[in-house]
Amino acid sequence: MISKGLLKYIRSLQIKKYRLLHQAFTVEGEKSVAELLQSDFALETVFATQKFLQKHTHLLQKGFEVVEVSEEELAKAGSMETNNAALAIARMKPATDFAWQDHPFVLALDEVRDPGNLGTIIRIADWYGLTAVVLSENSADFYNQKVIAATMGSFTRITPHYVNLPEFLQKRPQNVPVYGAALAGKNVHKLDLQPRGVLVMGNESHGIRPETMQLVTQPLHIPGRGGAESLNVGTATAILLDNFFRNS
Amino acid sequence: MISKGLLKYIRSLQIKKYRLLHQAFTVEGEKSVAELLQSDFALETVFATQKFLQKHTHLLQKGFEVVEVSEEELAKAGSMETNNAALAIARMKPATDFAWQDHPFVLALDEVRDPGNLGTIIRIADWYGLTAVVLSENSADFYNQKVIAATMGSFTRITPHYVNLPEFLQKRPQNVPVYGAALAGKNVHKLDLQPRGVLVMGNESHGIRPETMQLVTQPLHIPGRGGAESLNVGTATAILLDNFFRNS
Repeated sequence: MISKGLLKYIRSLQIKKYRLLHQAFTVEGEKSVAELLQSDFALETVFATQKFLQKHTHLLQKGFEVVEVSEEELAKAGSMETNNAALAIARMKPATDFAWQDHPFVLALDEVRDPGNLGTIIRIADWYGLTAVVLSENSADFYNQKVIAATMGSFTRITPHYVNLPEFLQKRPQNVPVYGAALAGKNVHKLDLQPRGVLVMGNESHGIRPETMQLVTQPLHIPGRGGAESLNVGTATAILLDNFFRNS
Repeated sequence: MISKGLLKYIRSLQIKKYRLLHQAFTVEGEKSVAELLQSDFALETVFATQKFLQKHTHLLQKGFEVVEVSEEELAKAGSMETNNAALAIARMKPATDFAWQDHPFVLALDEVRDPGNLGTIIRIADWYGLTAVVLSENSADFYNQKVIAATMGSFTRITPHYVNLPEFLQKRPQNVPVYGAALAGKNVHKLDLQPRGVLVMGNESHGIRPETMQLVTQPLHIPGRGGAESLNVGTATAILLDNFFRNS
């Protein structure tokens, strides 16, 4: 049973202002909550069905509250239409400075606004072994429930760093190239790319902002041959990362 | 102004049964309707705002009804939350047989169920210059409004062929290889792939069905190096198509 007060608190976490205020966010669904329970995130409460609790007993020994609930209660409390497993309230991690020496290859997002796209990109970054993503300040919020859901658990392995992106690029170590997806860039299929440097992906409608683009040293282009004018930013990120990692 | 009867008709087209019955489907939003007007699809009616009508006058000279409506009416009639441009009712094209000789490279989908994924895949197929997609009978419906929206206009350049996929593959011309995305496949980065043959992509949860998989002659795998267990089927299709077309 979820109390009225808790229900209100859970729902408030669907709004960024309240996530920031409480430094907490929600995670929904079996796979995501199971990955969360195996991560180093601190938890406040796990609401779960009897079935989930039985299946994942070994993950529930830590210092947080566990509440058994029905599927209906989960659907009512969360943002998913159906949820037959669990919903967890987790603590946001304190923001840390980006350490260049730990990340020979950096994925940076310039105003990627759609939560589904950001979640997809985080999942792809995790697939290729990245452990951080750099985001301009007005990009979608990493802790948004739609972002978390779309990462399919990868949010537990990727650290977000929100920065003033042009400034961040200006202050990069010497000789670090900045790649950027741009229609007028070089054909990625003709380059022998190595995962060293920064790759900047731009906004869904407007691409990379001019103030960021002027810091891009290596514009890249995925050659198309059909009638489509563009690729979705998640799709383009996947193809570019594959081109960077295919030779390494 | 949209009459009550027309409103009911438009809404009924959000359901597959009624699309089949009427052999019609809806297209929403500025880019999609503009691409539709430049395609060879037959139209029944275009509902559009004054702004859209003024901007696209040159596209509205054909033999179909044009009705000026408000943004509120468009949102009320269609499936999009906001639509400040247009909604069109278009005629489905009669199904045609698949002509192997016209398609040296074939993308085949085995039970891809999510409309958003199918739409994304059609957009990617169009980017790489394909003009058809083969789908198993229980895949998502090409004419679903969410599929149409996610293609960003590419639905006008790709012909869907719904088939019994195992049978279709069995009857393929001699020496046509069948590639399939599978965890136990060969590393795509180590192969010199050429766009000849069939590429099969499987269901979001279950991958390629056993009866289809036994006809795959060349299983392929995208090597990952992080913690993510899998890639979204749209993402995987994009990466694989890029690997097929990068050398050609």
